[in-house]
Amino acid sequence: MLLRMSTLFLRTLREDPADAEVPSHKLLVRAGYIRRVAPGIYSWLPLGKLVLDNISQVVREEMNRIGAQEVLFPALLPREYYEATGRWTEYGDTLFRLKDRKGADYLLGPTHEELFTDLVQREYSSYKDYPVILYQIQTKYRDEARPRAGILRGREFVMKDSYSFDLDDDGLKRSYELHREAYIRIFDRLGLEYRICSAMSGAMGGSASEEFLAPAENGEDTFVSCRECGYAANAEAVVTPAPPEVTTEHPPLQVLDTPDTPTIESLVTFVNERYGLGITAADTLKNVVVKVRTPGSDEVETLVIGVPGDREVDFKRLEAALSPAVPEIFEAEDFARHPGLVRGYIGPQILKDLGIRYLVDPRVVPGSSWVTGANEPGRHAANVVAGRDFVADGTIEAAEVRSGDPCPRCGGALSLDRGIEIGHIFQLGRKYSDAAGLDALGPDGKPIRITMGSYGIGVSRLVAVLAEQGHDELGLVWPREVAPADVHIVGTGKDNQVEVAVRLAEELEAKGLRVLVDDRPGVSPGVKFKDAELLGMPTILIVGRGLASGVVELRDRASGERQEVPLDEAVDRVVAACRA
Amino acid sequence: MLLRMSTLFLRTLREDPADAEVPSHKLLVRAGYIRRVAPGIYSWLPLGKLVLDNISQVVREEMNRIGAQEVLFPALLPREYYEATGRWTEYGDTLFRLKDRKGADYLLGPTHEELFTDLVQREYSSYKDYPVILYQIQTKYRDEARPRAGILRGREFVMKDSYSFDLDDDGLKRSYELHREAYIRIFDRLGLEYRICSAMSGAMGGSASEEFLAPAENGEDTFVSCRECGYAANAEAVVTPAPPEVTTEHPPLQVLDTPDTPTIESLVTFVNERYGLGITAADTLKNVVVKVRTPGSDEVETLVIGVPGDREVDFKRLEAALSPAVPEIFEAEDFARHPGLVRGYIGPQILKDLGIRYLVDPRVVPGSSWVTGANEPGRHAANVVAGRDFVADGTIEAAEVRSGDPCPRCGGALSLDRGIEIGHIFQLGRKYSDAAGLDALGPDGKPIRITMGSYGIGVSRLVAVLAEQGHDELGLVWPREVAPADVHIVGTGKDNQVEVAVRLAEELEAKGLRVLVDDRPGVSPGVKFKDAELLGMPTILIVGRGLASGVVELRDRASGERQEVPLDEAVDRVVAACRA
Repeated sequence: MLLRMSTLFLRTLREDPADAEVPSHKLLVRAGYIRRVAPGIYSWLPLGKLVLDNISQVVREEMNRIGAQEVLFPALLPREYYEATGRWTEYGDTLFRLKDRKGADYLLGPTHEELFTDLVQREYSSYKDYPVILYQIQTKYRDEARPRAGILRGREFVMKDSYSFDLDDDGLKRSYELHREAYIRIFDRLGLEYRICSAMSGAMGGSASEEFLAPAENGEDTFVSCRECGYAANAEAVVTPAPPEVTTEHPPLQVLDTPDTPTIESLVTFVNERYGLGITAADTLKNVVVKVRTPGSDEVETLVIGVPGDREVDFKRLEAALSPAVPEIFEAEDFARHPGLVRGYIGPQILKDLGIRYLVDPRVVPGSSWVTGANEPGRHAANVVAGRDFVADGTIEAAEVRSGDPCPRCGGALSLDRGIEIGHIFQLGRKYSDAAGLDALGPDGKPIRITMGSYGIGVSRLVAVLAEQGHDELGLVWPREVAPADVHIVGTGKDNQVEVAVRLAEELEAKGLRVLVDDRPGVSPGVKFKDAELLGMPTILIVGRGLASGVVELRDRASGERQEVPLDEAVDRVVAACRA
Repeated sequence: MLLRMSTLFLRTLREDPADAEVPSHKLLVRAGYIRRVAPGIYSWLPLGKLVLDNISQVVREEMNRIGAQEVLFPALLPREYYEATGRWTEYGDTLFRLKDRKGADYLLGPTHEELFTDLVQREYSSYKDYPVILYQIQTKYRDEARPRAGILRGREFVMKDSYSFDLDDDGLKRSYELHREAYIRIFDRLGLEYRICSAMSGAMGGSASEEFLAPAENGEDTFVSCRECGYAANAEAVVTPAPPEVTTEHPPLQVLDTPDTPTIESLVTFVNERYGLGITAADTLKNVVVKVRTPGSDEVETLVIGVPGDREVDFKRLEAALSPAVPEIFEAEDFARHPGLVRGYIGPQILKDLGIRYLVDPRVVPGSSWVTGANEPGRHAANVVAGRDFVADGTIEAAEVRSGDPCPRCGGALSLDRGIEIGHIFQLGRKYSDAAGLDALGPDGKPIRITMGSYGIGVSRLVAVLAEQGHDELGLVWPREVAPADVHIVGTGKDNQVEVAVRLAEELEAKGLRVLVDDRPGVSPGVKFKDAELLGMPTILIVGRGLASGVVELRDRASGERQEVPLDEAVDRVVAACRA
């Protein structure tokens, strides 16, 4: 099917859309691949639909290759499935909920663990049936609080989700490994740059859950990697190596007058000047109060987090550490209700008496000594020793991770980068099979509880990620496998140039190439060249002024390389370029 | 991708599912193509997904062939688009409505006229941009009051919807004709039996709207066809030819005592016996009261419909005639509120005085004389003459259509059949472009109001329709173009039969055929044969006992024809059968 610019439903824009901040969003809109319908909800125009289909096809082929079988579940789902696992409530506001005409509760599926588990339970019974891997490429819904960057984080999006069902842990590991390999093949075929990051804290580089992150300045995720040992993890999963416990004796706790020092910076300056302590921010203990809400419960817990004063609490790490409970900001009115908590001067010494749980950063080891709040306005305390003057209720990974922090595996320096999650593989274990009671009848007649894995790829997001990684100042630069066409032929519109362009297009199409030809009458060569750069097909063929002397110009969109080619060699040269 | 029964996620059922009434529903569930998730909401299992994809592909190819361009809209849509056209309200309970986390109103798209209109309006401006045809194959949602028959009438379903945009009526006719031809090619390729029925009353066989109906006993739609002239129309669209007006003088209206004659049958018997009138039910005038509700308004109108007493009011025809207003049953409590309307004895003589609108069947022409109610319990009136004793406020097509009724085009006898709507093509005209103000700038600088067509195919419904038309007592019988595989190879499981079956499967796959092979160990030949018949691949190859003497058996699923084939000819013979 020859794509002709003269009839293609496509109008490119010279200006960036007002609501777009990241390059992929700007370019996909300007190049007419997508259009906005509502916040986080987009339509796919003809070229965008082709890219989406091409990506889906790569995903499908690689899933089929590992023996996964394609099914298709509905998006509109009755509440009962998600009630059984608690996710009807746990999902909170992120779940789109609705009622049908009879008043029955439904939701728009954000992910389908429950449905797949139920299906397998209904169809399979014997251990001989297993293992099985099922997948779908399907439209999903999440009512994101902050949909952003066009299709990078949408509220309606296309996802490949698959689920593995195995009889034992070794089987699960095999299914997981198959997915890991399939994902590597998929992202390699798509020409993506990506990192495989541990997404599971606790396990040192454990593989029970890994995320595929595409490095991108505009990414919402932060990940660390170690050049020494190859360790990579998302920031939520990084484990902070705890320093050894301190056994030296410390002087007794000393309360200091520190008027007007509600911030760490003002505190450090003041105590160094007034008391000559010679401390840095890292010697202070910052105590951050949050409210913690447990989904499905009305109770709200007050929790204090202690971190070294040179680090902020990273709210995403905090969220991950507390999940499924949800931390919220402790507001002025909350402080008003807790007069014991003196804003800016909180110390852990009194938390036990106040009945407030206290979790500390792993660096706050027993025996370490800190300058921290004295729980009175304008006063701090020095020589506050963990284990002596306060006892934490546990540790928590909530402090920000920084470039140069020690690698938890080898101790080397970590680098910190931003990325976009494009895939996630996860050994679920028996959470969902326990909820459903999914057993296989074993060879001895006894039930075997099935163990599951869950694996996702953000198919529509990949369009944005590819655009994010593949663009320059002129426009999009698609990898060949996902481009809407292999070659963009520009007939510049004078003499018989368009005619020759169309003839070449037809010949190339007959050879199996996917061709876009700019056959628009009355459009200037400059506009056509600009559009060709903007649209981003990997190969561009210009049939222009050179035609008079029997040559056309072959351009490589990615490298910008240009060469003149005799007209009668054009077809072979384009085929060679496209099949290189 | 070789489909192997040993690993295929498929468990066939010997019993019909309890909730299934029609063959397609029973067989698609028994053969493991679909599974129910909620009323009218189904999952597609691997074989079902393949059929769905194959149908989509045929639709896509034929839409592309007429130059239609594929796009993809979201299913989750903000209210504002449907508010502008009034459909947010008009759709009533059929629309799934929901709110997002910010309380904004959304709906799940039942059809996308508004979105396509908006898109074209945003992208196109000049008359030179037109015409354009856009389409999508997409998941749609309708909260049907009575979802039924599995995927025949679902609440979540896949539809191809396309929209044409033209500068003038001739253009619209061309776009309509292109669709008509594409639909004929699609349904022919799918091997469907179907009728093209006028869906527009008024126009004599007019082509402003036509439905493609697949004749089926279990169809929800009724259509008429005329063997004489080829006229076909859905029952809602049939026009009743009005008899000539009667000019003879009639005796004056006569009130008769007719105790205990609330039904037409009892009335006819009584007046013929008591008064010797010699009438039939067709000489009586039956008056049916309904309530009419207009969407978006709280007002409820009382309406009386007059039809010859030998015919029932067909509620679907009534609905179509009143649309978008919705008729409802006039209940006992409604009669209680209208003492002037004497149940069982209503006559039109007093309706004007009661201020009640009266619409009559076209057969109730001026001058025609009727026996009808006298508006008193136990009394009827004879010689009640239209135009003399009452004047109707208009005619309405609400009486049932019967086999043998006169064809509105040629007067021949109509036959009446049931069918399933599989496609609908509709010259919308300017309803949506008027609502949106969709104009093109003409060559003279003046705006041209765009005229639109809307065209739908029920893609997931087609799976059921194909099963409805293509099955026998043994199971499904797929046309080759949509079958999940070209050939089902059964290795009966003894000696090297499975081994040979798999080898043949691989050879046939290498030749480009789509192959399903039954390689299950420990499953009896009988079960395998039954499954092969149930699953319905068009060609079946049995590698069984004959293998010892060097032969295999080739079966044609549709005809049941069987022939022995030497093993070394098997591949060529199967290829020939599949490409015949």
